[in-house]
Amino acid sequence: MALYVMKFGGSSVGDTERMKRVARRIVEKQDEGHQCVVVVSAMGDTTDDLIDQAKLLNEQPPAREMDILMTTGEQISIALLSMAIHNLGREAVSFTGWQAGFRTEPVFGKARITDIQPDRVIHALNEGKIVVVAGFQGMTEDGEITTFGRGGSDTTAVALAAAIKADVCEIYTDVDGVYSTDPRIVKCARKLNEISYDEMLELANLGAAVLHPRAVEYAKHNQVRLVVRSSFNHHEGTVVKEDASMEQGVVVSGIAYDKNVARISILGVADIPGVLAKVFGALAAEKIDVDIIVQSGVQNGEADFSFTVALTDLDKALEVIKNVRSTLPYREVTSEENLVKVSIVGAGMVSHPGVAAQMFDVISKQGVSIKMVSTSEIKVSCVIEAGKLQEVVRALHTVYNLDTAEQVFVGGPQERR
Amino acid sequence: MALYVMKFGGSSVGDTERMKRVARRIVEKQDEGHQCVVVVSAMGDTTDDLIDQAKLLNEQPPAREMDILMTTGEQISIALLSMAIHNLGREAVSFTGWQAGFRTEPVFGKARITDIQPDRVIHALNEGKIVVVAGFQGMTEDGEITTFGRGGSDTTAVALAAAIKADVCEIYTDVDGVYSTDPRIVKCARKLNEISYDEMLELANLGAAVLHPRAVEYAKHNQVRLVVRSSFNHHEGTVVKEDASMEQGVVVSGIAYDKNVARISILGVADIPGVLAKVFGALAAEKIDVDIIVQSGVQNGEADFSFTVALTDLDKALEVIKNVRSTLPYREVTSEENLVKVSIVGAGMVSHPGVAAQMFDVISKQGVSIKMVSTSEIKVSCVIEAGKLQEVVRALHTVYNLDTAEQVFVGGPQERR
Repeated sequence: MALYVMKFGGSSVGDTERMKRVARRIVEKQDEGHQCVVVVSAMGDTTDDLIDQAKLLNEQPPAREMDILMTTGEQISIALLSMAIHNLGREAVSFTGWQAGFRTEPVFGKARITDIQPDRVIHALNEGKIVVVAGFQGMTEDGEITTFGRGGSDTTAVALAAAIKADVCEIYTDVDGVYSTDPRIVKCARKLNEISYDEMLELANLGAAVLHPRAVEYAKHNQVRLVVRSSFNHHEGTVVKEDASMEQGVVVSGIAYDKNVARISILGVADIPGVLAKVFGALAAEKIDVDIIVQSGVQNGEADFSFTVALTDLDKALEVIKNVRSTLPYREVTSEENLVKVSIVGAGMVSHPGVAAQMFDVISKQGVSIKMVSTSEIKVSCVIEAGKLQEVVRALHTVYNLDTAEQVFVGGPQERR
Repeated sequence: MALYVMKFGGSSVGDTERMKRVARRIVEKQDEGHQCVVVVSAMGDTTDDLIDQAKLLNEQPPAREMDILMTTGEQISIALLSMAIHNLGREAVSFTGWQAGFRTEPVFGKARITDIQPDRVIHALNEGKIVVVAGFQGMTEDGEITTFGRGGSDTTAVALAAAIKADVCEIYTDVDGVYSTDPRIVKCARKLNEISYDEMLELANLGAAVLHPRAVEYAKHNQVRLVVRSSFNHHEGTVVKEDASMEQGVVVSGIAYDKNVARISILGVADIPGVLAKVFGALAAEKIDVDIIVQSGVQNGEADFSFTVALTDLDKALEVIKNVRSTLPYREVTSEENLVKVSIVGAGMVSHPGVAAQMFDVISKQGVSIKMVSTSEIKVSCVIEAGKLQEVVRALHTVYNLDTAEQVFVGGPQERR
């Protein structure tokens, strides 16, 4: 007997028929002798429908009220899924985020989990019940309802798996597992059987939509064994774990891209100590993540620097920078859109020098200029113009021997949470 | 400055346009210098849509899961209404039932309020905010989500008004107030300017849909001044209070009817002490309300008795009676549907004998036989066949001088909660 956390995303429970199929899948798992905790997202388009309704009433709805609104999506899912499981003759009990014991920081729209007190979940499991938990949501100490932002249901699943010491956390989605790159761009992308947390983290951070980076971080930190698999078939999926055995001769495991990128340049900044800390501190205070940072050399006591933020945070970031001008004089601030970040990821890179140079060469052969570069031990990222994304990814995929003969089936729309 | 509780039902917030109108109405009240707590139901058909979805997955969904599902309807309403108020430049904050401090007994589907701890509501009011509270819902001591059943949002409004010592509790609905009878049956029904709690309680209990009886009880017990008025115009509505001034010469204030009636007869029951207590105790344990009870004389140590229950409880009631047969032998149980209960209500009856006799006379002149009768100081109820309901109500309305020259405008569908 093992304890499973099974997470189903919005497209897996997109309508009542899919909901019934998910219920059968869960009951199968229980029939194999396992205990099941299920984490579920809002059904299909529910989230978008709620956002649309909100926008009709208020173009900029308050974040607190948005969280009260959005959490109803998962609450509907847990109730309906529990009913579907009951209909198969099994006991199921559903819990909202706050009922399942998720405590978060007091931030609306993208709160982080501060604590989980899963007493009610464990109690229900001990009674032989299937437990269904609403993803994406929690409660502050003051009893305010919060959401985790995009990918939040993955985080719910992994964090809960850690809290209740589950043996496996299965992330059910609409693809068969983690791929060497986006199969919508490269038809001969290959499914990976295993991948390490670190590689997955890089891929997740870089916009591979199957798993949210925060969830992978959580899994790595708590050594939660993750499996990414399809809710539409019984294929084995991709195992994400610490010591993923490296496949023979594989230097690069995957190629990721991220279109949600914008570049901001601050020009003519006085070269005084603490300048960078001031800018990035102000951005961090507004929960704006900064990715690649490049600083030019100092000339005449002035420096230029550039950095990337999510395109969706660009307006807010520019506002923040405008607001710090009084304490941090600069000459000019510029921004650039229509960019994409392409990255190669692989634990094998460590022992193969020259991988980055090879990447730059492939990109330049496509006639694309590289705007920014960032590297880690297992990753090289380049920010390029968005226009030639497909050609660049395909060329890299071939160069790093990732092409497979099989064609990949890609199901419905990507999961959102 | 007064403290208002304003309750808006589902049809008042049926779509985003109506939601905006309600928001303006609330802001008007604040502009007049008042503090506002708003209680709101689920939007229009939301509740029915959720029930439909549940039935697709499980014909008999567990009550606990139904409550988790149903409460999302009001949660969506509070969030959207708060956003609409924010859009008018005012601060609003929404609370679910549990956030507003509603504690209930651990019964799903029709829980009673055991306690209200409105600290957060009062705190937000003191900060100058408009407070929007989800009707119809609460939480048990164990953190289970519960609903109050039909009419629950009225109860939320009145109970909250009592708890925060509001000056007035306004129930906004789709009619102008409380009428002498259902304007859909009698076009010349008159709107009452004032009515006593007791009269309203009888009318509410008897199926006049504007106010839920539990809400009226709560109002009477806590002396909450109630106003029933339209959300579609600014007419004055009907004031419900203890000492409603009796209008000159009015013996009967209103005529009500209730179609949700079924009669159960238990025949050949051994005349042993405690028989009635056993039957009605078993029904009460299942939360089935019994209304009129008639026992026949004892013959050969056996008695017959009949009573009415809600038609919607009939199957469950018959099941309960079957189950007590082992400890309470009886010869036969029969049931009758297609009935309606017609009642005349008026505080003036006390000083006018012969009112009941006049009622029986009017009904018999319509060629309708009376199945059961029940009286109180301010009410006479007759259970009759459903077929001639309209004729009977119209005749009674005329006999008791309730007809008015004006034609009544009746808006959308009746409020459900």
